[in-house]
Amino acid sequence: MEKKIKRLFIMAITLVFAVNCFAQQALVASSDITSPVINKDNTVTFKIYAPKAVKVEVQGDFLTPIKRKTSFGYMDGPGIAEMKEGENGIWEYTTPSPLSSELYSYSFILDGQKIPDPNNVYQVRDIASITNIFIIGDGRADNYKVQNVPHGNVAKVWYSSPTLGMEQRRMTIYTPAGYEDSNKKYPVLYLLHGAGGDENSWMELGRASQIFDNLIAQGKAQPMIVVMPNGNGIQQAAPGEAPDGMVKPQFMNSKTLEGSVEKAFPDIMKYVETHYRTINDKANRAICGLSMGGLHSLYISTLYPDKFDYVGLFSAAINRENKGENADVYENLEQKLTVQFKDAPKLYWIGIGSTDFLYEDNVQYRKLLDEKGYKYTYLETDGGHIWRNWRVYLAEFAQKTFK
Amino acid sequence: MEKKIKRLFIMAITLVFAVNCFAQQALVASSDITSPVINKDNTVTFKIYAPKAVKVEVQGDFLTPIKRKTSFGYMDGPGIAEMKEGENGIWEYTTPSPLSSELYSYSFILDGQKIPDPNNVYQVRDIASITNIFIIGDGRADNYKVQNVPHGNVAKVWYSSPTLGMEQRRMTIYTPAGYEDSNKKYPVLYLLHGAGGDENSWMELGRASQIFDNLIAQGKAQPMIVVMPNGNGIQQAAPGEAPDGMVKPQFMNSKTLEGSVEKAFPDIMKYVETHYRTINDKANRAICGLSMGGLHSLYISTLYPDKFDYVGLFSAAINRENKGENADVYENLEQKLTVQFKDAPKLYWIGIGSTDFLYEDNVQYRKLLDEKGYKYTYLETDGGHIWRNWRVYLAEFAQKTFK
Repeated sequence: MEKKIKRLFIMAITLVFAVNCFAQQALVASSDITSPVINKDNTVTFKIYAPKAVKVEVQGDFLTPIKRKTSFGYMDGPGIAEMKEGENGIWEYTTPSPLSSELYSYSFILDGQKIPDPNNVYQVRDIASITNIFIIGDGRADNYKVQNVPHGNVAKVWYSSPTLGMEQRRMTIYTPAGYEDSNKKYPVLYLLHGAGGDENSWMELGRASQIFDNLIAQGKAQPMIVVMPNGNGIQQAAPGEAPDGMVKPQFMNSKTLEGSVEKAFPDIMKYVETHYRTINDKANRAICGLSMGGLHSLYISTLYPDKFDYVGLFSAAINRENKGENADVYENLEQKLTVQFKDAPKLYWIGIGSTDFLYEDNVQYRKLLDEKGYKYTYLETDGGHIWRNWRVYLAEFAQKTFK
Repeated sequence: MEKKIKRLFIMAITLVFAVNCFAQQALVASSDITSPVINKDNTVTFKIYAPKAVKVEVQGDFLTPIKRKTSFGYMDGPGIAEMKEGENGIWEYTTPSPLSSELYSYSFILDGQKIPDPNNVYQVRDIASITNIFIIGDGRADNYKVQNVPHGNVAKVWYSSPTLGMEQRRMTIYTPAGYEDSNKKYPVLYLLHGAGGDENSWMELGRASQIFDNLIAQGKAQPMIVVMPNGNGIQQAAPGEAPDGMVKPQFMNSKTLEGSVEKAFPDIMKYVETHYRTINDKANRAICGLSMGGLHSLYISTLYPDKFDYVGLFSAAINRENKGENADVYENLEQKLTVQFKDAPKLYWIGIGSTDFLYEDNVQYRKLLDEKGYKYTYLETDGGHIWRNWRVYLAEFAQKTFK
């Protein structure tokens, strides 16, 4: 029997092939393709095996944007380029010029049908839409890559929110490298997602853990705990992570922009401050968010004016109507700002893209701050209401907090 | 200015639509479709919008399996059914009979090209292959669903493995509900993946956190910490989570089946037992794994015979050649078993499917155990080397540990 146990190495190799074939069986001839390929000069080549297709295109945010009519008017969306059929049914497209350092997203369009690149397992979800991603380095997107630096741990934790009437809600918590092996206390950044997002968004679309790992390793940001809660007041957790099952993700428009989330925010802080080694004072708390999360950050920081010394509004959805049972959250904003800016936050940071559909609202809000003499730091970038900007804003804001 | 801040609710609604359109713009007409739909009688309807397609099929593990030739011989793979084109370019297929309770996976085949269901964001990755999933309840797969029960937290943590010469390796750690709010110490289950897998596999393909949440809530399993390490000795982390970047996932055949992982296992235990509230004795440690992870569990438990009272071999790849620098890990197995079974594990559990390509190796191994009079618990199911079986084995094994 011992001899039988001692079989040839070929057994292991056979196992390898068998399982491999099983896992990949559906890819057939396609499975040998690598796509995308980032060439040495930072041009990028895309390939797909589609021998029966009449027309194959690549759609991506690295191509000249196309304006599309939406219910809100014309908005920039990803551009489209035709791919060319080569040998053996493999279609190919190479960008005509090198791409600058960024995280890009793309899909293929196969005879009119949008599909992911079958040879790229790296994808992100935005509401119900999934796109492939890739990263071009040698620039700012180096901070979006997993680098050979100490990594923080990332946990999905469940906390109780009595204010929202939920025993269990899910959030993502990043603890910086070294946290687990020290007794040190840390400052906390609360990082809020936008409408349509959830507690996974900043990790997946925003590359939050990579940004913090890299900035902290470079000494550009302080080691901090980063809390990414779910900002949809009717949701326990991201789609698929709650008892309502694998439902098709819908845009949340209930309990998102009517004060519930702002009022329930102390439930989150309570959990964090009783379960992590946090420094519990204003100087060691920051709050920032994108779009709806920018609105949440604005109103949470006015609602609890003694809590946050660092406030970041990224492409913030500034305006809210004051009605419903939580109208008081949004009422008397000017009065609340007077209180907040009496002992002003050390940093009140506003960032927005010049073509963002919320640009004018932010102009008006800055006008108000200017009139009152409230100091803030402002960054205007090009582009619109997109994750490319929000990653930039996070990296900027992170480098200015707790300093 | 205050009046400008107080804009109409329409602003929020507009924001909702705008972001929604932006996120979903690429789906166009397809975005209204819900697929799959689990009908009241547990038949399932699949839909896809593909007006230009000539032929659309659904490929899934709920259809009559198709034998495919692989380098290892003929193996069962997912069956295929033709979809029918209906109105407006929407293709549809409904299973002819209700599906029994299970987690199923499927893809569409559009004119010969395998694509995911564009209306189902729930996917799993197996090496470089991505498939959609759905769950039919009212049976054993109820334990694979997120139910309204207390949830354990799940963390991705980085630990140091001096034995493998890596300062940082990644693993997944499940702490049962209540862990964070008590001072109790807990038993630990080490749960190992197969060849081609990584520290994410048991969570994603294996539904580990759901299985434990549900079994613990039902009182069927003890609350336990579940540790899911990475069993590829040359890997720091799952594809995309390590500094080698977003590379196309490859089958690992280096440092997987040659003793490295078994020898480095104490590095994992050391981290867990110094960073979590664990009960550090044999009676409170369990180890189990699938395929390659079954081999690892077998040899780790013989290498450290005083450590594990619960050992589970799921479709285990039993045989190894004894050569290379870690040959001693696999040498003298019978002798090592004699030592291990002198103070026999409380549970030595073996599970395998009747059509598994490793079936005969397991027959031989059980013969050896029988000859020596070593007691074990055996479960034979139908089916082959597939996750359906491994989820069943995990639920069975979990209910028998620490009791």
